[in-house]
Amino acid sequence: MRELELLSHIYRSNPKLPPGVTIPPGDDMGAVSIGGVSVLVTVDQLADGVHFDIAYTSIEKIGRKAITRNLSDVAAMAARPVGAVAAACLPRGFGEANAKALFDAMHATANSYDCPLIGGDISVWDQKLILTVTVFAESDGVEPVLRSGATVGDTVYVTGQLGGSLTTIENPMGYTHHLDFTPRIGLARVLASNTDTRPHAMIDLSDGLGLDLTRVCEQSGVCARINTGQLPISPAAGIAARTSGRPAWQHAMSDGEDYELCFTASASLPRQIDGVSITPIGTIIEQQAGPRVLIKLPDGTRVDTADLGWEHTG
Amino acid sequence: MRELELLSHIYRSNPKLPPGVTIPPGDDMGAVSIGGVSVLVTVDQLADGVHFDIAYTSIEKIGRKAITRNLSDVAAMAARPVGAVAAACLPRGFGEANAKALFDAMHATANSYDCPLIGGDISVWDQKLILTVTVFAESDGVEPVLRSGATVGDTVYVTGQLGGSLTTIENPMGYTHHLDFTPRIGLARVLASNTDTRPHAMIDLSDGLGLDLTRVCEQSGVCARINTGQLPISPAAGIAARTSGRPAWQHAMSDGEDYELCFTASASLPRQIDGVSITPIGTIIEQQAGPRVLIKLPDGTRVDTADLGWEHTG
Repeated sequence: MRELELLSHIYRSNPKLPPGVTIPPGDDMGAVSIGGVSVLVTVDQLADGVHFDIAYTSIEKIGRKAITRNLSDVAAMAARPVGAVAAACLPRGFGEANAKALFDAMHATANSYDCPLIGGDISVWDQKLILTVTVFAESDGVEPVLRSGATVGDTVYVTGQLGGSLTTIENPMGYTHHLDFTPRIGLARVLASNTDTRPHAMIDLSDGLGLDLTRVCEQSGVCARINTGQLPISPAAGIAARTSGRPAWQHAMSDGEDYELCFTASASLPRQIDGVSITPIGTIIEQQAGPRVLIKLPDGTRVDTADLGWEHTG
Repeated sequence: MRELELLSHIYRSNPKLPPGVTIPPGDDMGAVSIGGVSVLVTVDQLADGVHFDIAYTSIEKIGRKAITRNLSDVAAMAARPVGAVAAACLPRGFGEANAKALFDAMHATANSYDCPLIGGDISVWDQKLILTVTVFAESDGVEPVLRSGATVGDTVYVTGQLGGSLTTIENPMGYTHHLDFTPRIGLARVLASNTDTRPHAMIDLSDGLGLDLTRVCEQSGVCARINTGQLPISPAAGIAARTSGRPAWQHAMSDGEDYELCFTASASLPRQIDGVSITPIGTIIEQQAGPRVLIKLPDGTRVDTADLGWEHTG
């Protein structure tokens, strides 16, 4: 079951959203107008066995990631976080010391982004640990960047390096970027606040570049052509490739939890901001039948992406 | 592990909350100022085996309760809901039809309170169903009622009837108020918007009157004396009493999930608003050593509440 399908269902079944909804469901954050001010909101869950494995992850890193996952959504809108609430369902026997360590880590991370925790809900059950964090944000003078603005001729960019982010049970000592990443809030606001550099569309990479860029293309009514030779492939993707036997570029295109930004812009952008690389990886093209995201190898060969796991073509 | 202890921990460990936090953690909702507007937020989880039993509960009622639990917190602040986000972790095999029914129910309930769902997060895992809903609200001209305003001499009131709300595995055909209750938003706003009737302190009854009133007393620096003869005991509490062998008033004082309001006011209030009863049950008294909530039987006997399950005396 795909998150997108269910979110689409929510969206489709709410055709008469009240006028106060300034950004409807389906973007990195939704927004409602409260007292004339647009308030952006996002929610993300972090579940043991799905988004981390408690056997291999410290309590502190779990708490940190519960906050930073949401802040990556805030970055994708070029918004400024203002506050958060956190809910936790703790496994029986988790212990009060662990619970305090968990909330201390969430709290410290949230505070470091000027995003104080202002409430919570805690339950205990006989199932695994799950954390749900909601972050709200304001535009604060920078118009939010939506997924729907990609325009034919735009260049497609990504920040940082891609692939091999996820620690897996098969690779317990492996790649920890999914725990240690830095939400690209500052970079996004710098780009979006300047008319010369403002992205037309933006998303954060949580489910893999192929799938997330597909979402941007769907919502913008366009397609994208990516040149794998331009992808900023992380060293971790190279390691993953040796294990999987698949080329490293496939890990960069398909692996989830990069928490980098992917955006499109007509401008020629700086190659880095504050030490974070910005890499052009392809071009937005006219909508056409078939997959939304087309792949070309450096030698010009086109790749059939049907089996690369980015469902939802067409 | 008590929710209050952990929330207190969050609160204590954040002594330097930024000035934008207009209602700190520890009330029914927290609030931050966004663009000069105070935005209230609450989060609640609904977990299979904790807050409902999926074997005995329809998907529609689960979805409804996920929203109404939060709206009861909105009522406790006398606020107006404006929007919601919902996160769900679905058990593998839950099925897309069930997932859609669940979101349809959440969606319909939220819309009926002018509180549209504007975003969500959906995962699938090998554990039980859990839903987490965040609702945000505005004061819209009615100053929020906090827990901390109870004053010596106030009368303690509750709405509706208390006790026996929870369906249990032992009583699968039992009491369904915890699924069917109506958040008292309209009543709260009527009371709070009129200076003659405005509550000094208010809370929604989720963990049982004894414990929830203890919270109001702690945050207000007072105690409360309750006369059990005045309690509006629900018929379901009477049924529960026959099973448990405990008096019905104990169920009215201790059972969770009433989702009625408890508040204090100096005024003499109407006995009902829009068909919802408002019952005086006791008085706010000076702070003293021992339990925060003192119980007197109709014959004047004082009850030792130490074993009634309202932890956190002192």
